[in-house]
Amino acid sequence: MENVKRTEISSIGEFGLIDRLTSNNLLLNTSSIKGIGDDAAVIKSEKHQVVTTDILVEGIHFDLVYTPLKHLGYKSVVVNLSDVYAMNALPKQILVSIAISNRFSVEAIEEIYDGIKLACEKYGVDLIGGDTTASNKGLIINVVAIGEQDIEKIVYRNKAKEGDILCVSGDLGGAYMGLTMLQREKQVYLNAPTADIKLEGNDYIVGRQLKPEARKDIIEYFAQENVVPTSMIDVSDGLSSELLHICRQSNVGCQLNEVEVPIANETYDKALEFHIDPINCALSGGEDYELLFTIDKKDLLKAQQHPDISIIGEILDVNLGVKLFTKGGNYHDIISLGWDGLKDEA
Amino acid sequence: MENVKRTEISSIGEFGLIDRLTSNNLLLNTSSIKGIGDDAAVIKSEKHQVVTTDILVEGIHFDLVYTPLKHLGYKSVVVNLSDVYAMNALPKQILVSIAISNRFSVEAIEEIYDGIKLACEKYGVDLIGGDTTASNKGLIINVVAIGEQDIEKIVYRNKAKEGDILCVSGDLGGAYMGLTMLQREKQVYLNAPTADIKLEGNDYIVGRQLKPEARKDIIEYFAQENVVPTSMIDVSDGLSSELLHICRQSNVGCQLNEVEVPIANETYDKALEFHIDPINCALSGGEDYELLFTIDKKDLLKAQQHPDISIIGEILDVNLGVKLFTKGGNYHDIISLGWDGLKDEA
Repeated sequence: MENVKRTEISSIGEFGLIDRLTSNNLLLNTSSIKGIGDDAAVIKSEKHQVVTTDILVEGIHFDLVYTPLKHLGYKSVVVNLSDVYAMNALPKQILVSIAISNRFSVEAIEEIYDGIKLACEKYGVDLIGGDTTASNKGLIINVVAIGEQDIEKIVYRNKAKEGDILCVSGDLGGAYMGLTMLQREKQVYLNAPTADIKLEGNDYIVGRQLKPEARKDIIEYFAQENVVPTSMIDVSDGLSSELLHICRQSNVGCQLNEVEVPIANETYDKALEFHIDPINCALSGGEDYELLFTIDKKDLLKAQQHPDISIIGEILDVNLGVKLFTKGGNYHDIISLGWDGLKDEA
Repeated sequence: MENVKRTEISSIGEFGLIDRLTSNNLLLNTSSIKGIGDDAAVIKSEKHQVVTTDILVEGIHFDLVYTPLKHLGYKSVVVNLSDVYAMNALPKQILVSIAISNRFSVEAIEEIYDGIKLACEKYGVDLIGGDTTASNKGLIINVVAIGEQDIEKIVYRNKAKEGDILCVSGDLGGAYMGLTMLQREKQVYLNAPTADIKLEGNDYIVGRQLKPEARKDIIEYFAQENVVPTSMIDVSDGLSSELLHICRQSNVGCQLNEVEVPIANETYDKALEFHIDPINCALSGGEDYELLFTIDKKDLLKAQQHPDISIIGEILDVNLGVKLFTKGGNYHDIISLGWDGLKDEA
């Protein structure tokens, strides 16, 4: 962002900005009938639709000291697409609202939109609308994602049943350790702006935090293998919080096997370096955007065959509670320590 | 808000807050399949759908010094429904994202939701989802509205044609004069907190600003009379700005007759008191949320028969420009001086 032209937003206004951001914005999905430029967008789906929205607030959800604007735009889309995939649906459209203070230039907003458009291309989603306005302070991004699926294939959180297999995609805790790293290096930088920032060798966990991906591939695998999970949720607040959502809404218990919880080597090593038990990164660290789901036993082999799906537990009768079976052979009640943007951290 | 119980948001967290806000939230529309409580809401429409979103930022779009929280919740929904009606569609679902600082209590957020729910009841809309999170400062509300209509009845901005009649519902400029009043009385109050705040006798214009309504009735009249406007837009930024949107997108000119522009007596009198030309309130004042539309000449009688529709001009060839025909018999080019949240006011 050095030596680039700085155009003040106030010099072109809302309509000028929208024109500049949305020129060459093509609609690729047949369900996207009319995009930006009217009072509302128009869509038409033959299937059932899922709709989700997430608001990202500067200083709460992201820190621009270490978050590139393009990554921020990309991530703001991905976190919403992840919610669509967690319904076993395919995202087709997004709408983006941005409130910005005048400390941002037009070029800065274009960076955000470059990230938004990159996510749209990668996931085959159309940007069909939104809103752009001023804020007194800070940057706020609200994204809405709309997806579609046949009703019998839409997966809720409340249909897990005793005997089902608990699975998760990818690995957990990485985004949290990436955040921990970035926050430490920010402090180093703030304390001594000329100090070396040491992010080398941490590409994986930093990438998990700054540029997460949604598990489109897993949903495509389900379709290909004709698997419909009995319940599913995306891991945005931490494994324990998400597992409790499934168990409470399904009225079941669960045994989660610590030894099976997938944690990447880099996450594991970095956790130890920070004197954090790696399993706690997975249980309580948020923003991995993996899929936590349960499948009927008949689909076990299909889950096992996928290299990026881990079998991490079993659904039990509700009276058996929600337990972590530790490496040491003990049972612990799982309680929600996941990220809650509104709760006291104390 | 005096002497009410104050519950800190941090004491119940995001999920506790969502539970408290959304208990007893019934889904009334058959197209609303699944509401709050999963990764995404589920809807199913046989018709085409319109989708719109607006973000309201404290200090930019509202001032809590004179905006009751319940009104704010109500208005944040109505401004989005207005966009749905402006497509000649009927709103069915909304999603609401709120970012709040901890200066707000749970009870304050409940006030906002009371207003949101009141608007849902009045307009027959289901609250199906959203997001609630913290902000460092201020209150931000993002609302998404989804409506439906047969594709051949959806009305865009770009199909006005030469010879069409230009119409507007209700009256214009009132919301702007209400805002002007409120801002003056705020200054009086800030300068001398014990001074009398004089809002009596200004109920209409203050109401237009604080508790606007969307013109559901006009859309119902169109359906009943089998009228499909050739173009339509809602008046959120001022008549001149909206008319220019229609004319530019339709590639037409227009004659707007000053004498026909509907301005309420209270708006008119208050404008003169503030030494503002009343027509400028209508042309440049925003937030009236009336519908500006064009109809084919064959539908003129139907428009004339409605007591709350004014015939205010005629669509002309593009080469004739977009002109105001003044009471004095002169023609003036109409330029956009409407509210633009991102442009310098200078």
